[in-house]
Amino acid sequence: MVHTIAIEPTTNKKPKPSGERLEFGTVFTDHMFMLDYDEGKGWHDPRIVPYQPIELDPAAKVFHYGQTVFEGLKAYLTEDQRTLLFRPNKNIERLNLSNHRLSIPALDEELVMQAISELVLIDRDWIPSEPGTSLYIRPFVFATEPLLGVAPSRQYKFMIILSVVGSYYQEGINPVSIYVEPNYVRAVTGGVGHAKTAGNYAAGLKAQEEAHEKGYSQVLWLDGVHRKYIEEVGSMNVFFKLGDTVVTPALNGSILNGVTRNSVLELLRHWNIPVEERALSIDEIAEAHRSGQLIEAFGTGTAAVISPIGALEWQENKMVIHGGTTGELSKRVYDTITGIQRGTMEDPFGWTVELSR
Amino acid sequence: MVHTIAIEPTTNKKPKPSGERLEFGTVFTDHMFMLDYDEGKGWHDPRIVPYQPIELDPAAKVFHYGQTVFEGLKAYLTEDQRTLLFRPNKNIERLNLSNHRLSIPALDEELVMQAISELVLIDRDWIPSEPGTSLYIRPFVFATEPLLGVAPSRQYKFMIILSVVGSYYQEGINPVSIYVEPNYVRAVTGGVGHAKTAGNYAAGLKAQEEAHEKGYSQVLWLDGVHRKYIEEVGSMNVFFKLGDTVVTPALNGSILNGVTRNSVLELLRHWNIPVEERALSIDEIAEAHRSGQLIEAFGTGTAAVISPIGALEWQENKMVIHGGTTGELSKRVYDTITGIQRGTMEDPFGWTVELSR
Ligand SMILES: Cc1ncc(COP(=O)(O)O)c(C=O)c1O
Ligand SMILES: Cc1ncc(COP(=O)(O)O)c(C=O)c1O
Repeated sequence: MVHTIAIEPTTNKKPKPSGERLEFGTVFTDHMFMLDYDEGKGWHDPRIVPYQPIELDPAAKVFHYGQTVFEGLKAYLTEDQRTLLFRPNKNIERLNLSNHRLSIPALDEELVMQAISELVLIDRDWIPSEPGTSLYIRPFVFATEPLLGVAPSRQYKFMIILSVVGSYYQEGINPVSIYVEPNYVRAVTGGVGHAKTAGNYAAGLKAQEEAHEKGYSQVLWLDGVHRKYIEEVGSMNVFFKLGDTVVTPALNGSILNGVTRNSVLELLRHWNIPVEERALSIDEIAEAHRSGQLIEAFGTGTAAVISPIGALEWQENKMVIHGGTTGELSKRVYDTITGIQRGTMEDPFGWTVELSR
Repeated sequence: MVHTIAIEPTTNKKPKPSGERLEFGTVFTDHMFMLDYDEGKGWHDPRIVPYQPIELDPAAKVFHYGQTVFEGLKAYLTEDQRTLLFRPNKNIERLNLSNHRLSIPALDEELVMQAISELVLIDRDWIPSEPGTSLYIRPFVFATEPLLGVAPSRQYKFMIILSVVGSYYQEGINPVSIYVEPNYVRAVTGGVGHAKTAGNYAAGLKAQEEAHEKGYSQVLWLDGVHRKYIEEVGSMNVFFKLGDTVVTPALNGSILNGVTRNSVLELLRHWNIPVEERALSIDEIAEAHRSGQLIEAFGTGTAAVISPIGALEWQENKMVIHGGTTGELSKRVYDTITGIQRGTMEDPFGWTVELSR
């Protein structure tokens, strides 16, 4: 079914940034998408309007009880000027999984796809074309009912905003140093760690701040129950090459089911590289490092795609990985996924979706 | 130090509600307090303005990463028309503890006290006088920087809004039925459960919704590690009278340090009733129930003060407590604390603070 999305074009186009050195998530395009929910009426009034501030009652539940979810995906411009999305259906499915966990009414997935498509096409001129750049798409839902009782909201807004993303890696992909977090916990089984909801990110800020102060760029999260199983790295899923096998933590309810994670798994299987999704302890990693079997490690996520890990610190033990340089597998996975995303490589999986009017 | 708070009085006073049957947190007064934070400048521009919607960029961090904290306390009108607060310093201290955990810059505690005081006095006519009614005070902080990177915000707003609260108990205090939650977890040691931050409440919505469907009014949360130690009940701390001793879970990092909890503890000690703050398992409660030693149970929090628990369901075992009626101790604690709060009973602890110009 094709929905009718009302469109109010901007009369005041903003100047576009000059590519290169853009801080992530700071520059937004000319338009945004909005949709409202009211109990009894359902989701209504899909519209694209000029990017502008929103007005909310100070009692709106989002400010108090954090009933909100979001997504993140990207649009790419190919050399022949086509506009590609990467597996948007995965993000839209996950959006509704998050909604479900947060007691937010489900969105019509076709409408969300149509909204992303129309919005990106209207602001198509904003998609940068330099290698490594893209347009970041941020769909999000938040509770707007002005009521201080702790209960699911009876009113919501769903919005999509677009942000111009400069090249994540200025000079090729670069390994980072990671601090294995011994005290703080991001999420626990039975909680909301598998949902893309605001509270998970708020919960991680302190640890991240302290890791920065120690000179690390991110933390590696351990599970909240045993404090030894590896969960994620920063806001990314994480992979380790142990000997010839690639291992990533299984989806256990406290980590996010990353689209990049899933794509990396499919790619490795396609290449006949042995992969395992299972519980993986930090002790096993330390042991593999000692025995010379920790070959590579990398994080995966929409923002950086692949983020090689050059060093891990765990209890005063600094493990340097792949001599602190990017490993062959990390590089190959990065080149392949970004190649597919930008249309410079064949897409045997049917991952890309071309947008056109 | 006395701060200068700019005041813009409303020119459009709203009609006041007619006491009684008010839904909690739905009716707000004529004014609100605001304070801004900008990196490099600190907290600035304290002001009281007419209650009104706020404007935010859709990229404001509060919508995406939930960097927000809040407080809740009440103002009471005494029979001789004095305005009392109950232990506001406790809430203000806790606000800064929450700020610290969420990487939000500390607030000047004197300024917060002054802001609460001036705001309540300006809207003093809104404080209802019927027994059981009060004015609920909601201070809250949220991140406003329009930036999608996951990192502490460089801009915040601190606000205080006031809501008229009808009588919580229409016909005296009433016991509730509680479902002991076996699957969902609210918070875990190492997380943010001890901070009053939005994500904790979002995380609890689903379990609460499912408990309602089963006919229970709230859930009892168990710890996320062993899934057996009692944490809180709904958004309240919880007390059990086991034989002659009153037991409440110790502050372990995953539960909130409730002001009411603290007051109940002080009161019980003052009365020479044996109290224990310690780990308390649901099995111990079930065993006490079997042996006839589970005498009373109640939740504590600012909203209801004391909420007696008439029944607990745990793994198909429905434990009726005190015959489903309010116990003597619950009643005595309730009468004493509400008496002190409303100025009808002596306040040997110096808990109440009178507001006056
Ligand atoms: C907590 C967390 N883990 C993992 C990921 C990676 O998911 P994806 O590959 O879908 O971007 C994200 C999002 O980027 C995330 O926020
Ligand atoms: C999670 C939680 N636990 C306990 C309490 C009780 O705290 P207080 O007695 O300070 O209201 C509250 C707040 O009311 C709460 O939100």
